[in-house]
Amino acid sequence: MKKSLVICALFLAAATPAHAQFSKPERAVEYRQAAFTILNNQLGRIFLAAQGKIPYDKDAALRSAEIVEFTAKLPWEAFGPGTDLLESKAKPSIWTEQARFKQLATEMQAETVKLTAAAKTGNLDNVRNAVRATVKTCDTCHDDYRSK
Amino acid sequence: MKKSLVICALFLAAATPAHAQFSKPERAVEYRQAAFTILNNQLGRIFLAAQGKIPYDKDAALRSAEIVEFTAKLPWEAFGPGTDLLESKAKPSIWTEQARFKQLATEMQAETVKLTAAAKTGNLDNVRNAVRATVKTCDTCHDDYRSK
Repeated sequence: MKKSLVICALFLAAATPAHAQFSKPERAVEYRQAAFTILNNQLGRIFLAAQGKIPYDKDAALRSAEIVEFTAKLPWEAFGPGTDLLESKAKPSIWTEQARFKQLATEMQAETVKLTAAAKTGNLDNVRNAVRATVKTCDTCHDDYRSK
Repeated sequence: MKKSLVICALFLAAATPAHAQFSKPERAVEYRQAAFTILNNQLGRIFLAAQGKIPYDKDAALRSAEIVEFTAKLPWEAFGPGTDLLESKAKPSIWTEQARFKQLATEMQAETVKLTAAAKTGNLDNVRNAVRATVKTCDTCHDDYRSK
């Protein structure tokens, strides 16, 4: 357990009471990017299947949808104060337009819940509509809050 | 939706039938590292609380445990053929000792299920024992399969 203790000691050393969930802002940026990496991969699989570019497998689509729904909940706590000062594609307007950014994040999460519901039906048309609606919420947010 | 289409087109262009879930091995490495980034962060929070280094909040610990359990299922599909040739901390022995590697991965996941169960009791002693057992499975695997 000693290595893990070292890791945790490093974690703790830099932890501040206000943002104890991340040892430093860099770790928060990595965390949110990690969540988006998984989300993007799994959503991409469903999107391609919906477009007929890869075979549609209803079990695989449901698994992907469940991962999308779960990971869609994760990034937001990692947009805390201080993380706006680091190099990333996140635009400064995220921190000056918090209410709208949170609203878009909420809308995206709501679509991922519908995506899972659609995937549970196993019907490709349902999945196609739901994945389009989900991707649209990604794009709406990226247009305003992610650098190209 | 046009940007996402571009992203998906790039995804598709490089996709091979055998590993269609990742457009190329680099994406698989990013995916598994993303899963471990989230897992490590959330497990670290529980570990520190169990050590008394940060306050124990049973709701926060349960949320972290659920994220740990979920993300613990994700990395394994991203250790596919070709990903062993890329620069990462993953040792070549992962691909020559597949049975043992998978066994350790399975054991780790089993401990994360117990960790969530412990967190649901809200009892700090239960959480402490379960997080230690989980971290031990991380360390066992890292000892043999992750470069320092």
